[in-house]
Amino acid sequence: MAKKQNKLKVMFLGGVGEIGKNMTLFEYGNHILVVDAGMSFPSDQMPGIDFVIPDYNYLIQNESKVAGIVVTHGHEDHIGALPFVLRDLDVPVYGSKLALAMVGHKLEEARIKNKKLNTVNEGDVINVGCFQVEFIRVNHSTTGCYALCITTPRGVIFFTGDFKIDHTPIDNKPIDLTRIAEIGKSGVMLLMMDSTNAERSGFSMSERCVYKNLDNLFAQNLDKRIIVATFASNIHRVQQIINCAVKYNRKIAFSGRSMINIAEMAYTIGELKYPREAIVDIDKIGKIPYDKLCIISTGTQGEPMSALTRMSQNDFRKVVINEKDTVILSASAIPGNEKLIYNVINNLYRMGADVIYQSISEIHVSGHACREELKLMFSLIKPSFFIPIHGEYRHLKQNISLAKEMGIPEANCIIPELGYSVDVDKKGIVRSDNVPSGNILVDGSVVTDDSEMLLRDRRHLAGDGFVITIISKNSLEINPPILIARGVRIPDKLSDDLRESMIKELTKDKVDDDIQGIKQMLRKLIAKSLLKELKKKPMIIPIIIEN
Amino acid sequence: MAKKQNKLKVMFLGGVGEIGKNMTLFEYGNHILVVDAGMSFPSDQMPGIDFVIPDYNYLIQNESKVAGIVVTHGHEDHIGALPFVLRDLDVPVYGSKLALAMVGHKLEEARIKNKKLNTVNEGDVINVGCFQVEFIRVNHSTTGCYALCITTPRGVIFFTGDFKIDHTPIDNKPIDLTRIAEIGKSGVMLLMMDSTNAERSGFSMSERCVYKNLDNLFAQNLDKRIIVATFASNIHRVQQIINCAVKYNRKIAFSGRSMINIAEMAYTIGELKYPREAIVDIDKIGKIPYDKLCIISTGTQGEPMSALTRMSQNDFRKVVINEKDTVILSASAIPGNEKLIYNVINNLYRMGADVIYQSISEIHVSGHACREELKLMFSLIKPSFFIPIHGEYRHLKQNISLAKEMGIPEANCIIPELGYSVDVDKKGIVRSDNVPSGNILVDGSVVTDDSEMLLRDRRHLAGDGFVITIISKNSLEINPPILIARGVRIPDKLSDDLRESMIKELTKDKVDDDIQGIKQMLRKLIAKSLLKELKKKPMIIPIIIEN
Repeated sequence: MAKKQNKLKVMFLGGVGEIGKNMTLFEYGNHILVVDAGMSFPSDQMPGIDFVIPDYNYLIQNESKVAGIVVTHGHEDHIGALPFVLRDLDVPVYGSKLALAMVGHKLEEARIKNKKLNTVNEGDVINVGCFQVEFIRVNHSTTGCYALCITTPRGVIFFTGDFKIDHTPIDNKPIDLTRIAEIGKSGVMLLMMDSTNAERSGFSMSERCVYKNLDNLFAQNLDKRIIVATFASNIHRVQQIINCAVKYNRKIAFSGRSMINIAEMAYTIGELKYPREAIVDIDKIGKIPYDKLCIISTGTQGEPMSALTRMSQNDFRKVVINEKDTVILSASAIPGNEKLIYNVINNLYRMGADVIYQSISEIHVSGHACREELKLMFSLIKPSFFIPIHGEYRHLKQNISLAKEMGIPEANCIIPELGYSVDVDKKGIVRSDNVPSGNILVDGSVVTDDSEMLLRDRRHLAGDGFVITIISKNSLEINPPILIARGVRIPDKLSDDLRESMIKELTKDKVDDDIQGIKQMLRKLIAKSLLKELKKKPMIIPIIIEN
Repeated sequence: MAKKQNKLKVMFLGGVGEIGKNMTLFEYGNHILVVDAGMSFPSDQMPGIDFVIPDYNYLIQNESKVAGIVVTHGHEDHIGALPFVLRDLDVPVYGSKLALAMVGHKLEEARIKNKKLNTVNEGDVINVGCFQVEFIRVNHSTTGCYALCITTPRGVIFFTGDFKIDHTPIDNKPIDLTRIAEIGKSGVMLLMMDSTNAERSGFSMSERCVYKNLDNLFAQNLDKRIIVATFASNIHRVQQIINCAVKYNRKIAFSGRSMINIAEMAYTIGELKYPREAIVDIDKIGKIPYDKLCIISTGTQGEPMSALTRMSQNDFRKVVINEKDTVILSASAIPGNEKLIYNVINNLYRMGADVIYQSISEIHVSGHACREELKLMFSLIKPSFFIPIHGEYRHLKQNISLAKEMGIPEANCIIPELGYSVDVDKKGIVRSDNVPSGNILVDGSVVTDDSEMLLRDRRHLAGDGFVITIISKNSLEINPPILIARGVRIPDKLSDDLRESMIKELTKDKVDDDIQGIKQMLRKLIAKSLLKELKKKPMIIPIIIEN
């Protein structure tokens, strides 16, 4: 029996659209190692939802087993759920200096104290329960990113995290391919690898490639104010923008809460370098001539409340866009955000600014490995088994097709799906038990895993609005039916007709005494009429008042 | 005075995001020429709206002036508003055989009879009021597409419509560059040109390029059922898919209403060619072996009700997807549809199908001219003035930057915007009078140009739901306050507390007798509590019953 329990289980919790990203669990006997605890953005089908975190009830139920949480890097989709998880679980967290600085900031905002945050450096090896975890430097679109080499009682797992291969990164710290080659040589049972760019052929460009184009843009816009938007966490990008600004004698103002916070954080731990005197407060840029200023801003995804979006709507007091501005969007669109971003670009153009964005200039590179990089990783790691992670189903499929090209039989590959665990040892990999592993929706201050009815109602209201009718059952003569509609427009004539029909039905001899029956009748009457007259199907709520 | 009135005015009606696309008016003295009458899809900010048409009140107000409507081609964004416009206006319509077949079908569905549809052939010259219109063959992603050479009393206007330059089109009818060169030589006052691909460098690929890859896919999938999704109106694409199917001895079934309709229409007028016996009804494919069947389907944009989307949700009785299917999406994403399309792809993969789409294979070419084609057009037409049309603001700006490269001063270019007309003659081009030119929203059977409040309510309801409270003012003891919420979840305890607070406030000595005052008080009380406890701001509707 004991032997039967000691399987090595891999489990995937949470994710909207993408799978195997927000949270991964490794369980063996009485030990659970958690990798990442991130959040997702809600889908179009989740109106009003702020964000989505993994359903981590399995962790709560097995609290005594949870030996620790390792974070691969400091992006929201890998750390965003920690304030929730750490409120419920008292476990140590391990990660890079930058990642933990971001985690610390989050926990502070959430007023969670005394958490065990343990900084690990590249090359460090730690024990988490029965798991040995080695941290290997990788490149990505932020700094302090690690792949994990997890030695388990059943074999070695190489978990890439989000990664790319950059031979010429800004900090001269390329991915540690030498160590990866060694690990591959000593035998890896299972590779779990980032699939985000598995559809893209070739190699991702080096972050360094951005500089030449950025520099050109600064040189071409000597008389303009320059506003560059990028992800705050893209430390090397921010560094390159700062370097350009300094070279062209411009002061730098950070704009947007996360940009200001992360720039400070990264400076403090020495990962972002700039002369302090080059920085001006965004509130004090009024005194600086346009041609001596560079604003580095958030808002590359057209997020409604971000600094750049508000600038584009003339709703950002500190920066009023005009024809003396050149705005550079140094980022690409996350699928689903295209329209929001294009709205920002169109509006900036309308306000007279010149706008530079990826469709017309190469001012961004991806942080994820493309097909040739993925092949290189297969080639070095030489795993027996493969689980593609980080991506939509289509990306995971493409990564498996690469695995096949690299000689890994399809039977040795498994696509992770919510709701299952994967059992793996040197003999085989199989889909195994069910695990509670869905999503928890954060809706204002409400955190819920039971939201389907709520969301169905919101979608219904969004498309067709609602109609409420209030009937004073026993005093219809003095209190005629009230009809209230929002999100659907009922013409007066139709409203009168409806009230009349209702009275007629309610005063019939044979009218049902049963409240539910009356409600049902009213609902049908109104629905039928509105579908016929308006071709709309609003939510209909009849209320019967008894007096 | 008379002379002052006889300006040549160009006006742009309608459009969501894109400008100068759905409907363009040319007015001189007592003559109005209308070019196109199309629809747009609603933006994310228009929940529940079916589609959007130009506000054509200006045409109704000036009915006697409207000499005719010329349609450039049969795409929805150019003809979709005709059933509305022709219900209100009795004017002749001119267009190609295919475009008018599509218009005729639309009018039939809308039960509009006896309309004056006049087929024009390439090279035809017609008079519409004081305007002479010549129809010049262009290439695009459907057939029967014309550019217009409009001779006005003030000078010649060349209007490209949607176009690309395809030297090797499937019907061997390339764009008539010779005639375009002649027109350019004889002097063009104003060029109005498609801007959709003004961000893309180089040339668009020829439609013929698709064939080789399609053929390869058919050859590689001999034992599979092949399902190809494309736009029904892309006649040449459908033709190439048919040619492949016939070559590989497969029967062809059309799937999706518009595919079935347009395939029949195009066959009837001779623009689509196939052996009748190769076609099988989609309801009768059960008898045909998988490896002898090719289904040509709608649904490339992930439209919720389309055939392919329903197949991907196992909700299309006629075609149940499985691992013996290869699905080819021969189209690209219209911005904003990315997530819907990727959902379809992910779901098809999950059902076991192999999926081929643009990110991983070249099975689509654009129907719009890229930068080198646009330059060629500038070079042949040599216009004095330029108005970029068909595109978002960013595309129009890029087209103007091309115009500048081609020697047209920026002062001679105007970006069309809703709400203005443009006056042009050989001496100059200026932005002129205001014109009523917004959008009309089609919401079920309701057609309205006054929807901002309605949409604001829907957006509010979508994000935060609503709370209704019903107070029987004079019988609070027998009828305690009723509280109803949808789209926001109020815990029982909070609901009880709210009711209690309301009673407390309502039974205070000094309570206001004014109904509006009481409502305001209740609204504030509930809003404050829900924001504090739930961090949500639902719509709050207090109802006071007087009895």
